[in-house]
Amino acid sequence: MTTTIDYNQLALDLHSRCRGKIEITSKVPLASRDDLSTAYTPGVAEPCRRIAGDPALVYDYTAKGNLVAVVSDGSAVLGLGNIGAQAALPVMEGKAILFKKFAGIDAFPICLATQDDEEIIRTVRLLAPSFGGINLEDIAAPRCFYIEQRLKEELDIPVFHDDQHGTAVCVLAALLNASRLTGKDLGRTKIVINGIGAAGVAIAKILLARGIKNILLVDKQGILNIDQEETMLNWMHRKMAKITNLAEEKGDLGVALQGADIFIGVSAPAIVSPAMVAGMNDKAVVLALANPLPEIFPAEALAAGAMIVGTGRSDFPNQVNNVLAFPGIFRGAFDVRAREINEEMKLAAAVALADFIPPGQLNTENIIPSTLTSEVAEAVAQAVAQTALTSGTAQISSVRSYHL
Amino acid sequence: MTTTIDYNQLALDLHSRCRGKIEITSKVPLASRDDLSTAYTPGVAEPCRRIAGDPALVYDYTAKGNLVAVVSDGSAVLGLGNIGAQAALPVMEGKAILFKKFAGIDAFPICLATQDDEEIIRTVRLLAPSFGGINLEDIAAPRCFYIEQRLKEELDIPVFHDDQHGTAVCVLAALLNASRLTGKDLGRTKIVINGIGAAGVAIAKILLARGIKNILLVDKQGILNIDQEETMLNWMHRKMAKITNLAEEKGDLGVALQGADIFIGVSAPAIVSPAMVAGMNDKAVVLALANPLPEIFPAEALAAGAMIVGTGRSDFPNQVNNVLAFPGIFRGAFDVRAREINEEMKLAAAVALADFIPPGQLNTENIIPSTLTSEVAEAVAQAVAQTALTSGTAQISSVRSYHL
Repeated sequence: MTTTIDYNQLALDLHSRCRGKIEITSKVPLASRDDLSTAYTPGVAEPCRRIAGDPALVYDYTAKGNLVAVVSDGSAVLGLGNIGAQAALPVMEGKAILFKKFAGIDAFPICLATQDDEEIIRTVRLLAPSFGGINLEDIAAPRCFYIEQRLKEELDIPVFHDDQHGTAVCVLAALLNASRLTGKDLGRTKIVINGIGAAGVAIAKILLARGIKNILLVDKQGILNIDQEETMLNWMHRKMAKITNLAEEKGDLGVALQGADIFIGVSAPAIVSPAMVAGMNDKAVVLALANPLPEIFPAEALAAGAMIVGTGRSDFPNQVNNVLAFPGIFRGAFDVRAREINEEMKLAAAVALADFIPPGQLNTENIIPSTLTSEVAEAVAQAVAQTALTSGTAQISSVRSYHL
Repeated sequence: MTTTIDYNQLALDLHSRCRGKIEITSKVPLASRDDLSTAYTPGVAEPCRRIAGDPALVYDYTAKGNLVAVVSDGSAVLGLGNIGAQAALPVMEGKAILFKKFAGIDAFPICLATQDDEEIIRTVRLLAPSFGGINLEDIAAPRCFYIEQRLKEELDIPVFHDDQHGTAVCVLAALLNASRLTGKDLGRTKIVINGIGAAGVAIAKILLARGIKNILLVDKQGILNIDQEETMLNWMHRKMAKITNLAEEKGDLGVALQGADIFIGVSAPAIVSPAMVAGMNDKAVVLALANPLPEIFPAEALAAGAMIVGTGRSDFPNQVNNVLAFPGIFRGAFDVRAREINEEMKLAAAVALADFIPPGQLNTENIIPSTLTSEVAEAVAQAVAQTALTSGTAQISSVRSYHL
């Protein structure tokens, strides 16, 4: 593969030729009158009656249990920013077909004509009967944190903001394998995260949940710290300032990286210099995930002394990409009808993703599976489903796969 | 076909075996890295950018223009009544696959966890960016009238309550052909409609729009008239009382049917006696559409003197079924990107449906096409699209079919 392919033009051609990427098809035959009488009236009345009598039967007689709503308000789309609901549709359709390809999940794009938190929450709550789960997507921080939290409280189906947790799971998986190669105890490493939006905050949280204490969050205003002016911070920044940077360090990204073991960039192109990498600890790990242009290119980082480099791109080794996580996470949650995707399930997903690489194949250019490896989702799903069962959020007592 | 088939059990088997009837699939290949880069990041950013710059391009680059939301609150489902959102899902999935089979339209079931008019209106409005049209379904009267009216005012995509207009279009088509056989001028016939819910009101309205003046609406309280006690009527009843029954007749269904040319039942089983039919005018037409048990069975009505009888059932001649109308109506509206489905388009659909039967095949047992005739939707679509163009609601200047 070469980076000179013009994906923009290819994408325009593809999207206009097919007029979008999703299609809604029938799983049942509709050729004869009997088919119609069974799939529609009069036969359809009977599944309706049964569900009316026992709401749990909706999982037996409808597509709900395998259906994800991919919900966005278009406020933070890819690198494009706040382009609104309709312009976000191509991304949400793309997400939907990834769900299908990698996990056999039916996913439908819901782009909402509002960016009001309460309206989004209310709308998703009212839509919930049709869906088995909610995947929030491309909603700007810090609103995404509040919306997700409220929906998790109000709904009894999984709610998952992929920009947060999908990224966090993949990053943790990469770091688990990286630490096997560096020989460092992940719990004793110093980790710098650049970017304090959805991804940065969620990465910090999953690392904290994994027992890692020495974490600095950094943005244009420097290292996040509790002495920063209130007006410079949103409520999530203030919350994160209290649980990261325990030594109350101050300074810019260069200062933060001095002696750091791990850099995680979820921020902007070319923001990390070779000198900054050179100032990191031995056996430094650099995950420069800004897309399509990373915080620092792999060749530069390696030349400056990094031992392991990952990016978000498919044309370099160690591509950290959410598609490794969200399909399997929802698959696992659906297969045991989990009420939610809890912290244990996310950690289990990260471990399964890391362990997918056999010890013999683990090396500095292979710390995370390829995004095209179709068995990854199944491995993640199994770990997530088992963890849902043991953590008590599963609503059925054994795995019931939708893979028919 | 025999009526002894147990569709209830067949339907339970089918629905549980397939776990619902719809599936969301990809229209584009996803086998290689290049495929992913074109359908998803980084390529997908370009269609997003283009739509952000010119919102009309959403019809070129996404599935929106071929997507219908089948929206219900579960308040009036089939003959089952108010069974709620989740229990209504099998019906809405059934509707979705009929859209696909008969018109190639992608339709998605949206069952809402509310029966509050304003919440339904607000939710559908916020969902509208994802959809090219809204098909309201199984919402109780008179709320359905208000909700549809408000949404038509607030949205610039077609909004269509099928229980009203789909039924009305099919009934008018049947009557157009019936009048060719009876030789009566439809405009000078006396028509009795039993049932003053969504279907009855819409049938009366389309007949009025077609220039038919002598219409009686009847329900358990007798012939609708302007002297009825206010407390017995809802706001739509009061409105219809003013524009039907111009002679201010009073009495029960038997009184109403005396001398009537046409009976249309959208009400309850066995409510019409042979004696009532015998009291109708010569060459009486009886459309007994209550399902599955009609207001009077065809053999009885024919024996009592009716010339033409139709029902809602597939095992008798002249099945009047909405599936003859809604797929083609939406197909036609979509193919010219109509802002709405206006009265002219509905009338055109009825005429196209009637004219689909060649003069040589028109007879008392064949006044409306079979529901399994796949070319019906295309004929209806062409008439609807042309009428949208001439009536000024089309947003593109020629038919652009989604049949790829």
